[in-house]
Amino acid sequence: MIKPEEAWRRIAKEIEPLEVVERNRVEAGGFVIGRALEARVDVPATDVSAMDGYALAGDAGADGDFEVVGIIAAGDSPGFELPPDRAVRIMTGATVPENADRVVPIEETDGGVDRVVVSSDPGPGRHIRRQGEVLRSGRPLLERGALLTPGALGLLATHGFAKVPVVSEPSVAILTTGDEVVSPETTPAPGQLRDSHTDFLSAAARATTSNVTPLGIVEDDAVAIAERVEEGLLADVLLVSGGVSMGEFDLVEGVLREAGCDFLFDSVSIQPGKPLAVARHEGGLVFGLPGNPASAMVCFWLFVRPALRRLRGLRDEFWQGALSARSLEPLPGSRGRDLFLPAEVRFEQGEPLARTVLPRGSHDLAAYARGTALARIPASSEPAPAGSRCEVLPLENWTATAQP
Amino acid sequence: MIKPEEAWRRIAKEIEPLEVVERNRVEAGGFVIGRALEARVDVPATDVSAMDGYALAGDAGADGDFEVVGIIAAGDSPGFELPPDRAVRIMTGATVPENADRVVPIEETDGGVDRVVVSSDPGPGRHIRRQGEVLRSGRPLLERGALLTPGALGLLATHGFAKVPVVSEPSVAILTTGDEVVSPETTPAPGQLRDSHTDFLSAAARATTSNVTPLGIVEDDAVAIAERVEEGLLADVLLVSGGVSMGEFDLVEGVLREAGCDFLFDSVSIQPGKPLAVARHEGGLVFGLPGNPASAMVCFWLFVRPALRRLRGLRDEFWQGALSARSLEPLPGSRGRDLFLPAEVRFEQGEPLARTVLPRGSHDLAAYARGTALARIPASSEPAPAGSRCEVLPLENWTATAQP
Repeated sequence: MIKPEEAWRRIAKEIEPLEVVERNRVEAGGFVIGRALEARVDVPATDVSAMDGYALAGDAGADGDFEVVGIIAAGDSPGFELPPDRAVRIMTGATVPENADRVVPIEETDGGVDRVVVSSDPGPGRHIRRQGEVLRSGRPLLERGALLTPGALGLLATHGFAKVPVVSEPSVAILTTGDEVVSPETTPAPGQLRDSHTDFLSAAARATTSNVTPLGIVEDDAVAIAERVEEGLLADVLLVSGGVSMGEFDLVEGVLREAGCDFLFDSVSIQPGKPLAVARHEGGLVFGLPGNPASAMVCFWLFVRPALRRLRGLRDEFWQGALSARSLEPLPGSRGRDLFLPAEVRFEQGEPLARTVLPRGSHDLAAYARGTALARIPASSEPAPAGSRCEVLPLENWTATAQP
Repeated sequence: MIKPEEAWRRIAKEIEPLEVVERNRVEAGGFVIGRALEARVDVPATDVSAMDGYALAGDAGADGDFEVVGIIAAGDSPGFELPPDRAVRIMTGATVPENADRVVPIEETDGGVDRVVVSSDPGPGRHIRRQGEVLRSGRPLLERGALLTPGALGLLATHGFAKVPVVSEPSVAILTTGDEVVSPETTPAPGQLRDSHTDFLSAAARATTSNVTPLGIVEDDAVAIAERVEEGLLADVLLVSGGVSMGEFDLVEGVLREAGCDFLFDSVSIQPGKPLAVARHEGGLVFGLPGNPASAMVCFWLFVRPALRRLRGLRDEFWQGALSARSLEPLPGSRGRDLFLPAEVRFEQGEPLARTVLPRGSHDLAAYARGTALARIPASSEPAPAGSRCEVLPLENWTATAQP
């Protein structure tokens, strides 16, 4: 049995970001940029006015008086040279005509239509944004490894990128094993249980990749398992959850070894989730998740999620992004393993507050369903009163919470 | 001009969660439950063994010696009554036979196949999980307003819910106006700009709802705008971004009033983003976003995102979920309005660290593209050195960050 940090170190060693592919910009949100991109236009594209006002072609003097030769709106191409003794009405963002070297804001004029009187001279260059002063075409725009945020997509649109080089998203296959497991659509006979793994793992994986294939439920039979595993190993990541019977994962483990998998470890010092086994093969990784659904959930959040994120080029680690929170409930102690509890997190005056949801036994899935974060009680902790600090890792987009 | 908190108060007053509809469980992730749900099965479903071992039907005594009448695995239905002087081999999670009242863990036996010698008596009821001890069928399972997390979907699967009542997701329409705006696929003529609003707003809105319809770009013409606005008002939320020319939003505003919209306000004391106008009509809300793309982004994150979340039944507020962070850079001062800057956030030992990305002018979209959070500098703040505290609101799923 190894510590969770060591388990993650072994997993992370096996992971490189997936290949870089070209993707349509409008479908590239949430992907990571696969190589550095350069600006394709100057920003601004031309010399433009920063204000609504009048463009002049030299000193205005105090109380200057100018003939207004026209009006330039954003989108207009002026196409003329401004004589030194004339003015042109100009809108914010509009291209200044040739020769124009300053803009007088409208507030500092009489706002005239045919002639304009200006009450101050802003000086040369004032209120003009020069072509390329924010960014020059050909200069670095976004770095390799940058996340394609909505803002980044908007930026790439202004530079006319139709396609973007991105790190591929991982393919994930999900297989549930167990003679006692039936599909959620089936009414279980005595002793049978409906499968929750497929639903949980599909939804949880889809937060990181759209390429998720559930392979269904397979009985505890080496031949049947081998057949599905063969299919599952085509995915970058195969998630196999074992049933709860003793020795069942031995069956899966044997099949995986037969198929060329090397195990990195087969148990981790966490509670729940100890019987987590992780293997590598030529084409990817296999996570052998515990049959207990709550244990499988904890293993997913702690290890599978950061592994999937790394594959798609994001930087993630075991327990990365955890926050130090104030606990609103007394915290239980722990024994020899790190204890992970479902929790709800909210924020008051910038401080995170956590409410742990204590499961009523190892099959209390409802507690994990309600939790939107995991709280960690390090191994060998004493019980602690409400108000103590504990680390929490949010699992959902945390700035909006469910209603009370 | 009103303060952002007052702007949000006026918006929030207009928002009720959308109607409750039935949705297939497997497509319900991220939705909010529309009415309380009750358990449909007992958990556990039968009396089951908590250990691998031997079930007995009464006192074992020290060194008891029993005939083993069979083996029960998870999924088996025992279908017999255990006589008091017999034992049955039983697996974790397997249903105990009638009459069995305790389980001796295998470690406290000789592990015999035909006969077993037990070295301790666990006592009546030990290592048996009673039917319904975690949860009884008919008891509350998930509350109205709960988020359908991956864990909640797994839970609903075990209770056999094929459909779930959920709050609908809002429909969003996106319209860009401006004579100078061309599509990203077009090479702009001098004075023209490629549209970034549609890409940004589509991707940003899709983080909250899949029901997003871009209506394209419309020139500054009242008839043309009215035609598209009519279509846009069919959506729960219409996002209209104005071009940068002066007086342009007047045109849109006139069309909206004509179409029956009442304006809640038309400017907010924030920088950037001051010229934000919000209107309501019978069928929903309209956000008139500034033509400057960076300003529109800030307005989206501050006001549109929480509005969309509220519509789908999530609890959100202006600036909800902001964290008190330590700034890694000196912070600029602010004037009369709250200043919002793009920032990157990371976490060290549970503490959030923020690095603000100072835009090079109001058209530096790249700064907003790189930021995955907003930092807030309250109105009338003095400049502050690196190491000062500031509030940051993460915009992306923040536990994984882009690579350096």
